[in-house]
Amino acid sequence: MLSQTTSVAGGPSPFDLAACLARARVAARLVAAADREAGLEALADAIEAGADVVLAANRGDVERERQAGTATSLVDRLTLDERRLAGMAAAVRQVAALPDPVGRLVSGWTLANGLRVQQRTVPFGVIAMVYESRPNVTVDAAALALRAGSVAVLRGSANALASNRALVHAMRTGLERAGLPPDTVQLVDDPDRAQVTALLRARGQVDLVIPRGGAGLIEHVVRNAQVPVIETGVGNCHVYVHADADPAMASAIVLDAKVRRPGVCNAVETLLVDADMAPAWLPRMLADLHAHGVRLHGCEGTLALAGEVPVEPATEADWATEYLDFELAVRVVAGIDAALAHVARFGSGHSEAIVTRSLRAGRRFQDEVDAAAVYVNASTRFTDGFEFGFGAEIGISTQKLHARGPMGLAQLVTTKYVVDGSGQVRG
Amino acid sequence: MLSQTTSVAGGPSPFDLAACLARARVAARLVAAADREAGLEALADAIEAGADVVLAANRGDVERERQAGTATSLVDRLTLDERRLAGMAAAVRQVAALPDPVGRLVSGWTLANGLRVQQRTVPFGVIAMVYESRPNVTVDAAALALRAGSVAVLRGSANALASNRALVHAMRTGLERAGLPPDTVQLVDDPDRAQVTALLRARGQVDLVIPRGGAGLIEHVVRNAQVPVIETGVGNCHVYVHADADPAMASAIVLDAKVRRPGVCNAVETLLVDADMAPAWLPRMLADLHAHGVRLHGCEGTLALAGEVPVEPATEADWATEYLDFELAVRVVAGIDAALAHVARFGSGHSEAIVTRSLRAGRRFQDEVDAAAVYVNASTRFTDGFEFGFGAEIGISTQKLHARGPMGLAQLVTTKYVVDGSGQVRG
Repeated sequence: MLSQTTSVAGGPSPFDLAACLARARVAARLVAAADREAGLEALADAIEAGADVVLAANRGDVERERQAGTATSLVDRLTLDERRLAGMAAAVRQVAALPDPVGRLVSGWTLANGLRVQQRTVPFGVIAMVYESRPNVTVDAAALALRAGSVAVLRGSANALASNRALVHAMRTGLERAGLPPDTVQLVDDPDRAQVTALLRARGQVDLVIPRGGAGLIEHVVRNAQVPVIETGVGNCHVYVHADADPAMASAIVLDAKVRRPGVCNAVETLLVDADMAPAWLPRMLADLHAHGVRLHGCEGTLALAGEVPVEPATEADWATEYLDFELAVRVVAGIDAALAHVARFGSGHSEAIVTRSLRAGRRFQDEVDAAAVYVNASTRFTDGFEFGFGAEIGISTQKLHARGPMGLAQLVTTKYVVDGSGQVRG
Repeated sequence: MLSQTTSVAGGPSPFDLAACLARARVAARLVAAADREAGLEALADAIEAGADVVLAANRGDVERERQAGTATSLVDRLTLDERRLAGMAAAVRQVAALPDPVGRLVSGWTLANGLRVQQRTVPFGVIAMVYESRPNVTVDAAALALRAGSVAVLRGSANALASNRALVHAMRTGLERAGLPPDTVQLVDDPDRAQVTALLRARGQVDLVIPRGGAGLIEHVVRNAQVPVIETGVGNCHVYVHADADPAMASAIVLDAKVRRPGVCNAVETLLVDADMAPAWLPRMLADLHAHGVRLHGCEGTLALAGEVPVEPATEADWATEYLDFELAVRVVAGIDAALAHVARFGSGHSEAIVTRSLRAGRRFQDEVDAAAVYVNASTRFTDGFEFGFGAEIGISTQKLHARGPMGLAQLVTTKYVVDGSGQVRG
């Protein structure tokens, strides 16, 4: 039974979330004991084999969105072509080649009474993903869940429904060919938002939900989830240029963190400049940023140093905004205390950087800033599963529970204690 | 400012949760850099020094509950005396002596570009506890949070409010004497349930909430929390006596797991007996359990072997019930497949045990049962932070995120990545 949405009579049947989750639980028990590497290879093959069908479905999604006047950048993210599909298949093969995160011994010891305790990594079971338009997440999430011994229940956006349907159908075909249960990958195949709410409340049936997308989506998931959730992604990141910074290094880091790829969560959104550093360094920096097309919002101290460079007066809202664009807030601060206070108030706990030659300032910044990744003399852009060497990334956690920072396969498993005795009782 | 509830004019002022959480955040930053061991010693001293005031307040709570006709067992849990208070202070000193879980290097590596990445343990920040009547949890939770570098916001039950107020006042006095912020420990000093809901929704202000209490309380917290939560405690645990079990060992384990302390979450609630084992072993086991005052609910196979022992017919509800009492459900199963299916359907993912001499059966049970702790030939009662050697226990997690099984100090911290560079940009 490969298609989830076709009834015996051949017509589309209404999507049944409870049945989907029950099938997922059954599949989870089978997947835990299956040859997952073979399953991943089959999944990659099936994406390639199904390319024509997937691309045709995707053209339908793209055409409809174009006619609806959807923004070009969103349509671009939705669009698949031969090259992107090949990239998706290649990514699955890379995941297949990663070491299995399941079955590792985390710790082990023997109690005085002779009980041998082992803490081992085991799969979560059923992992749900709620995400926005890019269809590559459909394949990525399915592959990472399978590599981690779990099954995936996927909820993409309505505007990618036909693409996701075709991708999931292809993957299910491949899984079945490899002898794995097709229900290892399922799509919540109903655009009704009530299905998302029901998915988020399926206590005992969903072991983990991970949202991937904009701030609105993540907020919705976190506020409504009654199942365990890992919050990802919102990055209101700062670079603080300390009074004792190397000026050229500071400029290079700020430019890298802002202009190379402004639409990602580890890009800088607010530049904090020490008042002692600002007069000599900031005017040139502002000019460079402006030359790179960055729209600037500045505090009064910044405005006073802007010269010919256009800088709009910054409001409170600017300090709190994740622009995700060629846009930057700039604030001159009285020293490291003021910088730390600003980051504590406005930072989203993602990535924060200080540029300094002072060991003491660097250490204090790293000790006191409460964020997933805290950098001395490096760009915030390194907060990334691939850059960190994990070989994969399911998202960047901005919460403190379970995983913080880039999440690779090691964060997609849980543990259990396995205890061996010879009749011990506690008495 | 020691009392949270006394206004300048001396009368009680309405409790302000937002102000409480703002103070907690300020205190969290100070506690992270304070001498927490000295703070814990001061906290223990203060509990002893404040004994008279605490006991007087407790007498009020106890008297009111007695008059209200509250069940004796609940009144007993609420009651403090000199010995219990001394035990609470001693427990705090034990926590003070445990190794600091903060600042440990979890892992570290150097990237090809020279960036040095270190993952270090850091405090959560603000930990909220929502719990039921026993006032010792007030002290326990405060001490463990402080040992883990965090501050505690405590919400006990309304029937212990005066006791908790007195304990928190004593602890705040001690903390202030030791130079720590008194807001390291705060009480949600308002019995209105709306305060719990507000606490559970304080995103960004509460870093972690841990419920401790009965199934109803835990369910309420998990369903309403929008802040990260660790689910604890509900244990519908099984002992499966395999066909190849040592009969005497099986009896000893079942008795230990049921009758030594039936009111705790790691006690057994359902006994599964292999059909091949049942005729020779079960009649005597049922008689032993009955002799220990255990009320029995059995399947048809059990009833057939009960002889003179009174056994009530078990219903579906019995398999799903955590009795927490001298009460046990008993089911004869056709073999390990049937036992695994029963555990998968009714287990709460807490602690499960098999008794067997078969290596293969033991291994299969440990591999396939999805629970925090899976035992071969040992009592389920060992699932406990102290028994596991953690030196402390904040609860037993039955979820898969962050912590699973007994939680000690190591589970009460989070991590951050500290990255040292020399000007690296991603480009």
